[in-house]
Amino acid sequence: MTKSDTTRARLLARGLDTVSVGGLGGLTLGRLAQASGMSKSGLYAHFGSKEQLQIALLDEATRAADRAVVAPAMASPEGLPRLRALVEGWLGWPPRAGLGGGCPIAAALFELDDMAGEVREHVAALEGRWRALLADLTQQAVALGHLCGDLDVDQFVFELCGLYLSHHASSRFLRDPAALVRARTAFAALIERAQGAQAR
Amino acid sequence: MTKSDTTRARLLARGLDTVSVGGLGGLTLGRLAQASGMSKSGLYAHFGSKEQLQIALLDEATRAADRAVVAPAMASPEGLPRLRALVEGWLGWPPRAGLGGGCPIAAALFELDDMAGEVREHVAALEGRWRALLADLTQQAVALGHLCGDLDVDQFVFELCGLYLSHHASSRFLRDPAALVRARTAFAALIERAQGAQAR
Repeated sequence: MTKSDTTRARLLARGLDTVSVGGLGGLTLGRLAQASGMSKSGLYAHFGSKEQLQIALLDEATRAADRAVVAPAMASPEGLPRLRALVEGWLGWPPRAGLGGGCPIAAALFELDDMAGEVREHVAALEGRWRALLADLTQQAVALGHLCGDLDVDQFVFELCGLYLSHHASSRFLRDPAALVRARTAFAALIERAQGAQAR
Repeated sequence: MTKSDTTRARLLARGLDTVSVGGLGGLTLGRLAQASGMSKSGLYAHFGSKEQLQIALLDEATRAADRAVVAPAMASPEGLPRLRALVEGWLGWPPRAGLGGGCPIAAALFELDDMAGEVREHVAALEGRWRALLADLTQQAVALGHLCGDLDVDQFVFELCGLYLSHHASSRFLRDPAALVRARTAFAALIERAQGAQAR
C-alpha cells in the first residue's frame, strides 16, 4: 500500500462512521477535513467532489457489509440455511461491522428518494445488487425444494426488505429492545408462508 | 386570522414541501427565507430557531396526514374495515395531501436515528402516537372478532410498519410500479395470518 492508499483508507473509515451516524447530507469535504485533520484541498486530491466522496463511502459501506454479512452467510449450506444466515447477519449489521450508526444505504433510500443525480443513481445500483442477491438466495431455496415452487420471489424480497426496515426503525430510532425478536418472528412467518405458498 | 397567522401558514406550507423533498437536514431558516422571499430575521420572529421550525413542520405534516388519511378512515365502520381504510389511505399518502416528496416523519426515522435533541424527541412522540393509533384500530378489530383473540398486536403493528416502509422505499426510491400491489399483497397476507393467529 502506498502512503496515498493508506490515507485514503483512513479517510474512508472515518467518513463511513460519520455518514453512518449523520447521513450523507451530514458529510461535506469541509467536515471530513476537520474530523481527519487534513486540509480541504488534500481531500479534493483524494475524492474530487462531495458526490465522489459520498459514492466512495457508499462503496465502503458495501464492502463492510460484504465482509460482515455476505461472506459469513456464504459458508452456510445453499438454500434456506444460507438465506436464514444472511437475514440473521443482515439485521443490525452496522455495529458488528464497526460502524457507529445505522446502515448508510437504508438511510439513503429515504434521504435521496426525491433527489436526482449520480449519488442517487449509485445508491439505486447498490440497492438493486443487494435485492438481486436476496432474490438469488431465495430462488436457490426454491430450486432445492426448501420453499414452494410457485413462490413469488419479488414479493418475498419486498416483504423481507420491509421487516429489515422496520427492524432498523424499531431498534435504532425507537430503541425498542423487542425489535430483534419482532423481526425474527416476522421472518419465521414469511418463511412459513413461503413454504405453503400454493395454499395462499 | 391575523396577518401573522396567514404568513405563518404560508411559511409552513412552503417549508413542509421543502422538507418532504429534501428531509429535515435540507431545511434551514436561511433556505426557507430565500424560498419564501422573507428575511431570515422575519423567520426567526415566527419560529425562533431551526429546531423549532423543524418541529413546527413535523406538526404540519401530522395535521396533513390527519386530514388526508385518518379523518377519511374514521368514516369507515369500526374494526377491520376501518383498519383497512387507514392502511389504504396511509400507503403513498403524501402526494394526495399535496406534499411534493415523501413522508417527512418516515424519513426522519432514518435521518435522526443516531442524533440526540428535541427534534428527535418530537419525532419519537409523533411516531409513538401513530403506532398507538395503529394498535388501537387493530385492537378494535380483535375486540369485534374480525381478527383472532390471541393476536400479538405489537407484532402486527411492527409488520404493518415494515410493509409501509418497504412501500415507501419501493415506490419513492426504486420507483417500482408494482410497489402498491406488493404492499397490498403483504397486507392481505398479514390480515389472513392475524385471522388464523391461533394456528401459528
